[in-house]
Formats: sequence, C-alpha cells, structure tokens
Amino acid sequence: MKAEIIAVGTELLLGQVVNTNATFLSEELADLGIEVYYHTVVGDNLQRLLDVLNEAEQRSDLIVLCGGLGPTEDDLTKDGVALHIQKELVQDPDGMEKLQEFFRFSKRKMTPNNLQQALIIEGGISIPNPTGLAVGTLVTARDTSYLLLPGPPSELKPMVFQHVRPLLKELFPTKEQLMSRVLRFYGIGESQLVTDLKELIDQQTNPTLAPYAKPNEVTLRLTAKVSSEATGEAMLQQLEDQVLALVGEFFYGYGDENTLEETTVKLLTEHGKTLAAAESLTAGLFQSMIGNVSGASKVLKGGVVTYSAEMKTALLGVPERLIKEHGTVSEACAIAMADGTLKLTDADLAVSFTGAAGPDELEGHPPGTVWIGLAQKGQPTIAEQYHFNRDRQYVRYSAAMKGLDLIRRAVLKEK
Amino acid sequence: MKAEIIAVGTELLLGQVVNTNATFLSEELADLGIEVYYHTVVGDNLQRLLDVLNEAEQRSDLIVLCGGLGPTEDDLTKDGVALHIQKELVQDPDGMEKLQEFFRFSKRKMTPNNLQQALIIEGGISIPNPTGLAVGTLVTARDTSYLLLPGPPSELKPMVFQHVRPLLKELFPTKEQLMSRVLRFYGIGESQLVTDLKELIDQQTNPTLAPYAKPNEVTLRLTAKVSSEATGEAMLQQLEDQVLALVGEFFYGYGDENTLEETTVKLLTEHGKTLAAAESLTAGLFQSMIGNVSGASKVLKGGVVTYSAEMKTALLGVPERLIKEHGTVSEACAIAMADGTLKLTDADLAVSFTGAAGPDELEGHPPGTVWIGLAQKGQPTIAEQYHFNRDRQYVRYSAAMKGLDLIRRAVLKEK
Repeated sequence: MKAEIIAVGTELLLGQVVNTNATFLSEELADLGIEVYYHTVVGDNLQRLLDVLNEAEQRSDLIVLCGGLGPTEDDLTKDGVALHIQKELVQDPDGMEKLQEFFRFSKRKMTPNNLQQALIIEGGISIPNPTGLAVGTLVTARDTSYLLLPGPPSELKPMVFQHVRPLLKELFPTKEQLMSRVLRFYGIGESQLVTDLKELIDQQTNPTLAPYAKPNEVTLRLTAKVSSEATGEAMLQQLEDQVLALVGEFFYGYGDENTLEETTVKLLTEHGKTLAAAESLTAGLFQSMIGNVSGASKVLKGGVVTYSAEMKTALLGVPERLIKEHGTVSEACAIAMADGTLKLTDADLAVSFTGAAGPDELEGHPPGTVWIGLAQKGQPTIAEQYHFNRDRQYVRYSAAMKGLDLIRRAVLKEK
Repeated sequence: MKAEIIAVGTELLLGQVVNTNATFLSEELADLGIEVYYHTVVGDNLQRLLDVLNEAEQRSDLIVLCGGLGPTEDDLTKDGVALHIQKELVQDPDGMEKLQEFFRFSKRKMTPNNLQQALIIEGGISIPNPTGLAVGTLVTARDTSYLLLPGPPSELKPMVFQHVRPLLKELFPTKEQLMSRVLRFYGIGESQLVTDLKELIDQQTNPTLAPYAKPNEVTLRLTAKVSSEATGEAMLQQLEDQVLALVGEFFYGYGDENTLEETTVKLLTEHGKTLAAAESLTAGLFQSMIGNVSGASKVLKGGVVTYSAEMKTALLGVPERLIKEHGTVSEACAIAMADGTLKLTDADLAVSFTGAAGPDELEGHPPGTVWIGLAQKGQPTIAEQYHFNRDRQYVRYSAAMKGLDLIRRAVLKEK
C-alpha cells in the first residue's frame, strides 16, 4: 500500500504557512500501517494540480489531498480531482443541511459560494466535518483512492480522528496491526527523558518508543506491531512498566488529545473539590485553560485577575504595607493572594500567580521570575519561586502549567 | 523563473519532523522575486530521488534541494543529483580544510564517512557552511540549476543569509521585485469578503489580492510586482483604497503578525484609557489575551472570573433576584456584571461575558448563546446577544474576539 500526500494552497508556496498537515497525516497513516512515499505542495492552480495528480496516480494507491475545500474561487481541489477521474460533483444532503443550519443559527446571510462546501465527488463516500462546513470525500477510480480533506488543522484533525481513521482501517486492513499507547509527562524535558530512557530506546525494535516534545510537556508513544490485540496489550504494558519505573514521577496521563488541564479537572471532580485562582502575570490564562475543559463548571468557582498592585489590595485584601515591603513579585504577596482568594470564593483550593512576564524587569526581578501560591482549606498556605524562560507568552503558559501540576499533586496527596 | 523545493528525508515522510525548511526557503525565494511552484518531499532512496529530479527538471529552472548532505549512508542527495546530470563528485579544498581543522580542534577521530561532507558536484560552485561541515553546491546543467543545501535549520539559515542570497541575486537578477501589504479584518467571513470584493478579485493581475481565513478573522494580502519601490507603494495604496471602500468597516489593522488584541491595547494606550472585565463562560480568556500583549499593564486593571452564579453575586454584586428572574444568560445579568466591574475596579471601560459555552444547554439556551455587556464611565451600559458556533473552545474564543472589537469600536467612537 503506497500512499502520498498532496497539500493544495499557494500560501504554502509563498512560505506564509507551514505544512504541518503533511506531518500530522504522515504520522496517522504510519500508525495505520500505510506507508507514505511522497509529499507534494501545489498552488491553487487547476492545471498544475492536474499535472500533480497525473504523476501521483502512476505511483500511489492512496492519494491524500488536503486544503482547497472551502467556499472561495481558489478552492479547487474537488474540481481538480473530479476532472482528473472524470466524475461530476454532487450535493451531499447532510453537508447541505449543516450548512443551512449554520447560517440560520448565526443569523448570517449565506453567500452562494458557500454551497460548494457541501459538494462531494460522484460515487464517493462523504466524510462529515465535525468542526467546520466543508465535507470530505473518499473516492476510488482506476484502482487509486483519493481522500480529500480540509486544510485548517482545526477541521482536519477532528475529521481524521473521528471519521477517516475508522474508514481507512475498514477499507485498507493490514494483517499486522500497529497498536500504540501515548504516555504524557510534565516536569521533564525531552533530552532528559531520552537520556533517562537511553537503554530502553537503544534496545527497541518492537515495541518502539518515540518521544515528542510539546511546549512544556513531553509525550512518549509506545508502538507495537502485532497480529493479535491481546499480545499487543501485553507488550505495551510491559514496556510502560519499564518506562514508569524510570520516569514515573513525571507521568500524568494517557492519550494524544488528553491535557494536563483535563487531567486536573477530572481529578478535582472525582474528589469533589472546588478551585479558585488569583492571577497577576497570567492575567486569566490559568482559569481560561480550566474553563476550556467541558465540565469545568463543577470545579471552577472563579477568581480574580489582579494585574495592578491596587487591584491586589482592593479585590484580595493584600495589605498595602506588605506590597511596599516585599513587592508584588514575592513569596509574601503570592501567599496573601492565595489566602485572599480562598476567603473571597470559599473554594477548597486557591492558586495565585505573580511575577515578571517580560520583556522588561519588574521590581528588579528578571523576566521569567514567578511566584506561585497554593492555599487549601485547613492547611498552611505555601508559595514557591520558579524561573521560566523564553518569551512573554511562554513564561505565562509555563506558569499556568506549573499551577495545574501543583493542584494535581496536592489533590493526589490528599488521597 | 520557475523554482521548486525538494526536501530529502524519510523522517519527514514518517511525520517525525515538520518541513519548516520549505517554508523558510519559499519566503526567501519570494523575497528575491523567484516564484516557487512546487514543494516535494522524498525519502532517503536513490531511485525515488532520481524520479523526482526527472520530473522537476521538466518544469523548473531552479531546483532547490535540502537535506541529505551529511556523513551517513542515507545522505544521498549529492550522489542523486550528480547521477541525474551525469557529473562526478569532487573534493572542495576549503571544505576539506575546515573538516580536518574541526576534528583536529575537537580532538576526535575523523571517521572516513565524514569526507563526503566536503564533496561538491564537478563544475559547481561550492557554498561554505558557516555553522556546519557539509558544504553546499550550486550547479547548472541542461539549462536547469540545482542548489544543494543542508537539512538542519541551524545550518541552512546562516548559509542562505550569508551566501545563497547574494549568489542568487547575482546569478538570477530580477528586474522586478515583489512588494506586499497585509490588511486584517474582523467581523466578516472569508466567503463574504470574497463576495464583496469579487470584481476586484476577478480583475486582478498586478497587484494581486489573496484572502486567508484564520479563526475569527480574515487577512488579505495585496502583492505588487514592480520595478521601483515608489511605484509599488502607489499601486498597493490604490488597491487598498478600493478594498477599504468596499469592506473598510471590518478593517482593523496591518501586518502578518499584528492581532486584534494588540490593536486594542495600542488604541487604549493612545487614548489613556483603562480596561477591566468580568468573565463567565470565557473564564479569563479575554483578559489573558490582553495580558499577552507586551505593555498591557498600562491599560489592563484586571477583573474577575465569575464562573458560578454565586460568584456573580459575591464579587460583582449582581442581585440574586435579578439572576432568579432573568437567569445568568441574559441582558440584565450582562449589564449588571459590566456595571459591577466598573465600580469594583474604577476602570474607564468594563466588558462582561456570560453565556452557554457548550456542549450542553444552559438555562435552556443552546450552546453558543452569549451576552456581552459594555460599561463606560459617564455613558449608559449596553449588552448585546450573539450566537457563536462550533465547539466550546471556538465559542469562548469568538466571544473574547467580539469583546475586543466592541472595546476597539467604543474607543474609536469617542475620538
């Protein structure tokens, strides 16, 4: 089974957008046992797209196209493939209904060009778009299959996870299947993780271990090539045990789509605990990350954003004298903020963030200096200092992630 | 002058590495007036590389290859190109000296495979590698030029900046240069923008107009191909005027890297206004977006995250009776939240967010129903209802973006 990926979009050829879609699709196809031999990028130009399709058809069994399914005139991927295999475009009833519903609900006028988003290639399978309006298609002609997917990653990924993976598994079964398990780590860098796991990584053949660094965390993908699911589970479990014996203290959860905030919200929910926060440099980022998890309302009471010193006093009762004496970037201020929040909201746990986000120093502290406070009912309030690196955005994000980990560890400790 | 980029490396096809080199090279080539028509990725396989070179030679004047110049056996880009154009590989004296010097200095033994890093294609120009050992080559055969560059971005970029750019400018002088200007729009979808600008887009030849949709906004890139900067400026200005005459009400700023939050913070700073917020469904996202802008401390006083109904009463003084009568997803609640925030923080403007983020209904309102309130000193407080679509994350982000736009418009109106 030979596959290739064609991304369609002039913005890629101008260097305005990075082709992360090809990377994502390659990973997913590899995981399904489908080998990718080429990536191509071609602009929004019908003749060049046709040339590329001609070439691809001669060498591949599966051609995955992404981009160019939208409503504008330069979205011509469907036209191109239809022309190439000499089929017509037809309306997809479900896609059409969703399109009309969208414009009815948002009370916006639907311009006629939107209709092309609900077209699929005649004889093809329509693939629903969980987060967008352009439907995908899988169509086979002259022994080659064409899979047409949307370009925006926010649409592409849900479509692949929910619909494309099951479809490809069914249509192109592989005798040997790949089974994988993703372990997630917080508090350890990729290079340290790889060093700690060096022996396991050097020995690996089947199952394999692949680390992947994300901002502020590392995931580790364990993959076994097996003929039965039971064997695979056993192999993965054995390797996981070996990994966790070495770096288990940094492990927080499973899965590609899981996050530290989801793990934290789930844990708080299970323990029936409520949470509040006082944010200075993070300015709402921590609460917003919690709020993004479905079901957050069960645990998040709310809190304050006290960006200025006066607000720390006015909203949280941090004494003016304390700020004068210790400054806002201090252990004392972080503790007073956490205490004030616990009192104000009557939550079970309250976390506070104060520090210098950068790019400038704050009160003589270099950018990246952050104090995080943690108050819990019936326990002494504590605060710790951290030094985060890089730019403003990264410092703020690193602080919020550290806050999540502190909460998670505090709740786990209570058990 | 038609160019294309070929990246060589199996790791790209496995999805382990993102092809940022193609993006970087495309930007650089566009800047030099060289048009890129294709990107290709091919694995470390000689036959497939030869096939790709054959295809590329038929359609391009300049073929830029990156990756595969290193010392290991799977580094075969030089061999591939040499075979393709029937030339030999020869030693580059400068490259060889650098190589020997490196191993002498680092007191490491040089394994023989390192020698291939100092080879170039016979008849080609050797390109020094400022940060690595593998030399680059530019060689021309049968009217096509082949530019071989290293894969690691830390080697590629310095080589391009210091040596490749001057070389290409000299060898392929373009009389014409590309000038571009990016306009940013909020409050209009891509399909509507394209419909409104249809006549301009249909007529375009030079300058050209390219829309690009991002979550919740659209950018429009105006690009002119010109022989003098003054002509370019005039052409772009004329087109911008035509565009803004049609869709100017949605325009908010210039530039690839600019954002609605940056524009808003800048505007508030210029007008000496301070801002506060009360966030329910957005849970801190709005304030966090503001807080991410460097210099936000001048305008953002802070505010509250009142996720639960009790918090709305406890922190903002929203009357319990009001919530009982109207619910939290209501005009009355949004107004009371905005008023309460203005009073609590003494800011010049206060914005409030309350609604159903989803996935479930809230108080009988479908997900995506949002009220946004706006209070300003000395003016009546108002609130408007909006309907946002898609998932929880998108609804929250859409609400925060709308809040930014309301603030921006309110400040502009004051002028």
